[in-house]
Parts: sequence; C-alpha cells; structure tokens
Amino acid sequence: MNKTIITLTTDFSIKSPYPAVMKGVILSLNPQTQVIDLTHEIPKFDIFTASFILSYAVTYFPKGTIHVCVVDPGVGTERKGVIIKCQKGYLVGPDNGCLSLAAEKLKPLKVFEIIPEKFNISSQTFHGRDLFAPAAAYISLNKDLNEFCKPLPHFNKINFPKPHLTQEGVKGEIIFIDDFGNLVTNISLSEINEAGFKLKEKVKLRFKGKTFKTRLLETYGQGRKGELMLVLNSFNLFEISVREGNAKEKLGAETKKVIEVMK
Amino acid sequence: MNKTIITLTTDFSIKSPYPAVMKGVILSLNPQTQVIDLTHEIPKFDIFTASFILSYAVTYFPKGTIHVCVVDPGVGTERKGVIIKCQKGYLVGPDNGCLSLAAEKLKPLKVFEIIPEKFNISSQTFHGRDLFAPAAAYISLNKDLNEFCKPLPHFNKINFPKPHLTQEGVKGEIIFIDDFGNLVTNISLSEINEAGFKLKEKVKLRFKGKTFKTRLLETYGQGRKGELMLVLNSFNLFEISVREGNAKEKLGAETKKVIEVMK
Amino acid sequence: MNKTIITLTTDFSIKSPYPAVMKGVILSLNPQTQVIDLTHEIPKFDIFTASFILSYAVTYFPKGTIHVCVVDPGVGTERKGVIIKCQKGYLVGPDNGCLSLAAEKLKPLKVFEIIPEKFNISSQTFHGRDLFAPAAAYISLNKDLNEFCKPLPHFNKINFPKPHLTQEGVKGEIIFIDDFGNLVTNISLSEINEAGFKLKEKVKLRFKGKTFKTRLLETYGQGRKGELMLVLNSFNLFEISVREGNAKEKLGAETKKVIEVMK
Repeated sequence: MNKTIITLTTDFSIKSPYPAVMKGVILSLNPQTQVIDLTHEIPKFDIFTASFILSYAVTYFPKGTIHVCVVDPGVGTERKGVIIKCQKGYLVGPDNGCLSLAAEKLKPLKVFEIIPEKFNISSQTFHGRDLFAPAAAYISLNKDLNEFCKPLPHFNKINFPKPHLTQEGVKGEIIFIDDFGNLVTNISLSEINEAGFKLKEKVKLRFKGKTFKTRLLETYGQGRKGELMLVLNSFNLFEISVREGNAKEKLGAETKKVIEVMK
Repeated sequence: MNKTIITLTTDFSIKSPYPAVMKGVILSLNPQTQVIDLTHEIPKFDIFTASFILSYAVTYFPKGTIHVCVVDPGVGTERKGVIIKCQKGYLVGPDNGCLSLAAEKLKPLKVFEIIPEKFNISSQTFHGRDLFAPAAAYISLNKDLNEFCKPLPHFNKINFPKPHLTQEGVKGEIIFIDDFGNLVTNISLSEINEAGFKLKEKVKLRFKGKTFKTRLLETYGQGRKGELMLVLNSFNLFEISVREGNAKEKLGAETKKVIEVMK
Repeated sequence: MNKTIITLTTDFSIKSPYPAVMKGVILSLNPQTQVIDLTHEIPKFDIFTASFILSYAVTYFPKGTIHVCVVDPGVGTERKGVIIKCQKGYLVGPDNGCLSLAAEKLKPLKVFEIIPEKFNISSQTFHGRDLFAPAAAYISLNKDLNEFCKPLPHFNKINFPKPHLTQEGVKGEIIFIDDFGNLVTNISLSEINEAGFKLKEKVKLRFKGKTFKTRLLETYGQGRKGELMLVLNSFNLFEISVREGNAKEKLGAETKKVIEVMK
C-alpha cells in the first residue's frame, strides 16, 4: 500500500457522478491513496484549457504525485491512452495533448501506451473509469508499468501560443479566463521588458479595435476600484483585470482573442 | 477507529456550507474515516435522480462503504430515517425511495429505522447534519445498530420506469440528463436486441412528434462531429448524444419525456 | 507529522485550479493533513458572507482544526495576514473581518500577524497559495508561530447586523441566501419571543412594501407545498422559505434587504 496522491482534472462537472466513480475505482484498488480534485469544470472538450490548467497546478504537488487528466472528445476512437513518467510525477490520460504542457513542467523521462486489453473496459464511452483510473491506481501501487503498457516513442504535444514584439509593443492573446473574469494572457514579464515597458508604468491596451488606458501592476490592490489593469498574476503572466470587478464582462472577451500592449 | 469510506449524495450544492458541515460532524466522531463527495448537485428535491445516480455510483466503491443520501423534501415530517444494511455496504438516508435503487445493486440484508431520540437533533430542518451524518459515523465505528435503531420490515421503493416493445421498435423515456447534455434513456441493449436492432445499425428516433435519423453506436467517437447518435453509455443504457455537441439543447429535451427507437 | 484537518473557504470557485493549488502546497509541506473544502463559492469579494458561513461551519469540526479563509479583495495591499489562535482551533487569513465571526465562536486566545518576508511570495495576487496555505501547514506541523509571525494586539471585526423590536413586531434583514433560495435572516428565536410571538403562530411578513401572510414553523415539512413560511433553521435563525419552492425567486429578494415580522 502506498499513500501517493492522485489528482483528477476533467470536463465531467461535479454535477455528474463521474468524478466520484473514478474515485471509487481508485480507492477500491488502493484504499491508501488520497484523491484530490484539481478541477472537473474544464470547458467541455477544451483540450488546451485542460493542458494549461494542469501545467499550472502540477508544480505545487509533492514529487511522485500521479495526475490524471480526462478531457477526451476522442474516447473510443484510435487515440491512445498514455502514461508519461516524469522526474517529478506521473501524467495519465488520452494522448491528445492535454498532458503535454504539464509534462514539460514535470520533466518527461519515458512514455508508455496503455494497453486496453489489460483492462476490463465495460463501456467505450468512459475510459476515465475503465482505463485511466485503474492505471493511476496501479502506478500508486508500484505495479510494473510494463505489465499493462508498452513503450511509446513520444507523446502528442499541444501548441502554446507565443506572444511577439510589434512596432508599438507586444501582441499576445487571451489563453484563459478565470471565474473572477480575469483575462489571462500569454504575455510574461520577459516580453514586457523586451518591449521596453516597466512595472507600474502606464500603457495602452488594444482589444477588438478599441484602445484602453491601463497600467502594468503587480497586484490587484494597486488599482483603484473599477480600474482596468494589466496585473502580473500567479501564473507569472499578465492578466487583464478590473479591481473588484469583472474584465470579461467589461470587455466582452473570449479566449483566443488577440490583445496588444502599447506605448 | 476504522478507515471506512463514507460517500455523500445531496441536493445541497457546494455553494452551501452544508456538505462541509456534514463532513465536520463525521470527522469529529471518527477522524479516520474518508468522506467522498458523490455529488451535491442533485436537482433540488429530485428523489428519482438521486436514487438513479446513487445506484450507478455505489457499485464502484469498496465493499463496506457507507453511502449517505440526503434529498429530503419531507425533513421534519413523519417520514422515517433508515439504514439499509447490504451485502456490499450500507445506505443511510430518509426512507423516501432515494436509497432504493442503490439497495437493489448492493443486495439488501436488513432494514433499520433510525431512532431520532438517540440523537441530538438541534434543528428540524437539517437531519443530514443531526441524524444521518452521525448515524454514518457510528456505523463506521462498528457501533451496534440496535443502540440507535430499531428493525423495520421494509424500505420504501421508487419506480424505475420500464421500456416496452412497440410495433415499430422500443418506447422508453429520458431518465437523466448529464452535464454534457447527453440524454440517458431507460433502454438497454437487451430491449434493443429484442426489438430486432443491432449495434452500428441505422435507426430512427421519434421525439416530441419529430423523427430523426440516427445510429446505434458504442462510443461517441464513432459519430461524425455534430451527428445525433444513440450511444450505449457507461450506465449500460442508450443515451441520445451529439458528437462534441449538446443533445439537450439540440432537441429541447427534459427528463421524463418519451422517446421511441424505430426502423 | 500530524493528521490535523485544514478547511478552506474562498471565493475562488472550483472552476478554477486555485483551491487545488492550495491543497498541493499544504500536502507538499504536510502529507498527513486532511484538507476539507468548506466552500469555494463565496460570492466574489463578499467578506460578510465568508465570515458568516465560516462562523456557522467551524463549530462542527474537531477541536484543533485549522480554518483558512481567503476572501481577499485587498491582496497585495497593506492589509495584514493573521492567525487567530482560539480555544477550539485556528483561523488563518487576511485581517479584513472574514475571520472575525468564526473567532467569536471558537473563543480567541491570541492574535498573530504573519510576516510575509518569512515566506516565498512569488506573486502579489495569490497569498492563498504563497502565504496562508503554507502558514496553515506550519501550524499543522506544530511549528512555533513566533518563527513566522509576530504578536498583534487585536484582529479586525466585522459588524453582524442586530435585529430590533418595533411597535408591531421585529425588524431584521436578510443576511444570507442559500442555494435553495431560502432567505436567512438575522432574527433568532429570542427576538421572536421578546416580540411576543410563538412558534406555529400565524404572523405577517413585510418586505419591499408588501405584506405576506405566513407562519412561524420549526421545519419545512410543516408547511403546505408552495406555502411561504418563516422557519427556524439549522443556523438557529428564522429563514423565509417556500415549501419545495424558491423564496428568493418568489419575493425577488437580495441580501441586506430589510424584513419585518408583525402581528
């Protein structure tokens, strides 16, 4: 028995019984493990958001933690199930890119393809229950991966959009919107510095053809109530934020939309 | 001390502090137990959905798990609180049918009525906290049930609607809609076979007076993007599903509505 | 190692990865601790609701439990982070009042100011992760608080609105609305008795200029389906409730609105 932590990231929603069923399967195989919900509210079928959120969170868990991610529009098709053994933990899920950004953070060592025939697949619609939950439990029990997997040369990667310098500043995009309505961009402090901007400086923000006055700040609290700010957030990325307000609603924003920070 | 798992199923919502309060009560009595949220987002007062979801999930938990379900529109009335001791676990909750479908799955052995006078009921509005949580904790501590219960001849059962064969195929109904908008019906593979249909076959679906072309599939991935499908799901029931879409929105569907699968 | 329970109350929402990240930080420092979500769905920036919900829930947890609350509109400003050591547990969070109602319940013994310089603050936007989670983990490990805190003379208190007697009865306000649409007021049984009313009696309720016939009841089940009732709830406060319905929607109610119970 082993007390390893297993985390779960899915688009199942906690309104459904599916996350609990995965926990039941895991605890039936290893009652000593501790299962932690990372989140079950990934937007449906949104592999990029799953990959991004997972890559952010995994670095805060103890070495050896097993992270299961099931955002799996291709369940039941030819897509493979994989285990990525990393220096700092394990990643388990479909090989559709949802594990790839987290793998970079945890330093990948070896990739395995899960062999479905080694599992009791009772439905082709819920591999989270029939494949990935038991695979994670087996890892937590220190079972030899070669008993239910075969080596795979590499895992599928997802593209993380890169910001780039423009004549007037930096162009990036909105990659995640949190529940406060904060618009997380792909722009980090290094691009801001390269473009010649400094923290606390006044800048302009161009979005959907409009230009807004804003400031580059280090914390929400430095803004005035209702102020539109560019805040260096806990992802180490700049986010568009309204002090005690909702930037998503204020700007009518969505993910993948382009933004530009300018003089 | 005993490490038994206790699961919680309620309509309280995790927006409320009520699920956490139940956990506090349980952990105060037995700090060794592990409390797992099955779901707290059962539609308010919806005893059938609670019973169905619970019956689906309980089979995946270890033998001996204690399942508490509190969907309890009659709290504070004459309705009894019960414990159903089963071969594979325990069920605890109001005797309004919410435990009955799960009891069938876990194989009921003996029924007990919880005696409220043995508990410190400080409010007639929250028996989850004052009655069912402590009762579950007592079971986890191997306390003799006769100390706080008396025998009951039987528990109240809820009707699970049965599909039936028609001249043209099978008539059933929508019994559950998940967060993906999948419409789970009460039709299983045996009725589909009895009606002379086979998996992968093209069939018609009648719903609200309209007829749709569809296919009987084993997995979402066999459909084309946007296709309306009848998929044999992880409940071993057919569900109406749209590949990477939302069948509930597409059809304007609700639970209890009749559907017919036809040639 | 110590198995202490740590509870988390935030306005982060479980849609976000932030609660999970706090758990990762805590479990990295103390793998033996058990982290329980109290709720992460406090309305954004709503310090009063956080304080009220926390004060209700803490009394049901075992002695020694560590309660972390992060509803923190002032994160990154001058506001202090505090630990309130109480007879029955610990409270950890920003010193903005969100801990104060719970402190009264747990009997405060000593107040400490967390010294940020003792922590690795990698972002000024997420003290939940960088300050309060590790502080709670240190307490669970029985670390001497003086190693990362200094004494503080007192903590900031939040005002709990008091109901008062009127010529016709009692005037109070709505202080919390739960997910059932029940309107929890600040009126307890003692005010109702002082005003000369008794349980089960017919009374009138004045709200937004309208007067409604209602009854003072002990449980939802005593009402008729659809009846508007004043029910003595599990907070030991009267709440405006509709039997198997939604009082919030029926009355168009919000928190902080005045209500009057009258002859």
